[in-house]
Amino acid sequence: MSFNEFPSRLLENAVNEFASLPGVGRKTAFRLVMHLLKRDADEVRRFGETIIRLHDEIHYCKVCNSISDSEICSICSDDKRDRSVICVVENIQDVMAIENTRQYKGLYHVLGGIISPIDGIGPADLKIDTLEEKIMSGGVNEIIFALSTTMEGDTTNFYLFKKLSKYNTSITTLARGVAIGDELEYTDEITLGRAINNRNLYQQ
Amino acid sequence: MSFNEFPSRLLENAVNEFASLPGVGRKTAFRLVMHLLKRDADEVRRFGETIIRLHDEIHYCKVCNSISDSEICSICSDDKRDRSVICVVENIQDVMAIENTRQYKGLYHVLGGIISPIDGIGPADLKIDTLEEKIMSGGVNEIIFALSTTMEGDTTNFYLFKKLSKYNTSITTLARGVAIGDELEYTDEITLGRAINNRNLYQQ
Repeated sequence: MSFNEFPSRLLENAVNEFASLPGVGRKTAFRLVMHLLKRDADEVRRFGETIIRLHDEIHYCKVCNSISDSEICSICSDDKRDRSVICVVENIQDVMAIENTRQYKGLYHVLGGIISPIDGIGPADLKIDTLEEKIMSGGVNEIIFALSTTMEGDTTNFYLFKKLSKYNTSITTLARGVAIGDELEYTDEITLGRAINNRNLYQQ
Repeated sequence: MSFNEFPSRLLENAVNEFASLPGVGRKTAFRLVMHLLKRDADEVRRFGETIIRLHDEIHYCKVCNSISDSEICSICSDDKRDRSVICVVENIQDVMAIENTRQYKGLYHVLGGIISPIDGIGPADLKIDTLEEKIMSGGVNEIIFALSTTMEGDTTNFYLFKKLSKYNTSITTLARGVAIGDELEYTDEITLGRAINNRNLYQQ
């Protein structure tokens, strides 16, 4: 089935909107629209209004740049968090991933991307100045680099290290090694090599 | 990454709305919402408004039950269409599929489903009465059954035939055979058997 002619302009517009989303083709878009037509009018109205409110009312935390419902996010305004540790991440998905481990009690700093010359993203496009200001204003004992283990992540780590190593703050990075559940024979050799070099004492 | 805790209620609501669509998991929903956040506010507003308008303003054609921007759809109100032929289809996707062939110049009748006891859909759930009324009111020379070649489609064909065969209208069905581009060795034996029995004179 191709979609040259729509019986309704409204239908066509809705399909076009869904098809503009990444990874959604015209067939899927059509299927989603037909699904919405079968739903209650109230539900569809709520769907549309939620999307509109999303962009209009959402805030980016003034301290860490994460997404928030208010000017300062719930993590940055939480008195129980350790303000001496800042974990540097690429985006808010990474904040959520680390939060879900429930292992980290410090603060975050969302860069809003990583250095990627191929995508035209340089250091000036990232929130690096505000990170440096936080360190300069004192009270920060540790900066954790928690970026992807890709070429771009490594480049960004290197740039940040050059910029921040002059301050009296320890700079750490996430442990690299064989992921839990991974089979050794399918682990790539760089990961395996690092895991051997950084081996720990066995604990039962 | 799991999604136990969202940093924003607005974000969570938007992810929940997208995840309520069929075939969209929470990870995909999150990705779509993050994409919308990066778009212009105007575009996102238009997206939301299009969805709301879809349900509020769309019409179902009073004659054929297809989707339309007005009370009578563009096909039913087109004087050039042959009003003596009615093609019976399951849903509006099928109308569009047949329209895209540009081979059919008659009218349609959308049943709104097919008989499927397993899904709890019986004849009373389909728009069969209005089809019968059209035939009774005269001027219809041919009814084309264009339903899926499934158990449910065959059941519906059988039911419709029993109900409509008493009228002085010829009842036809789409040709069944080996689809164009299909390799004979992978064609199922029922299709192949029918194709042999219904063979045509070879035309160059």
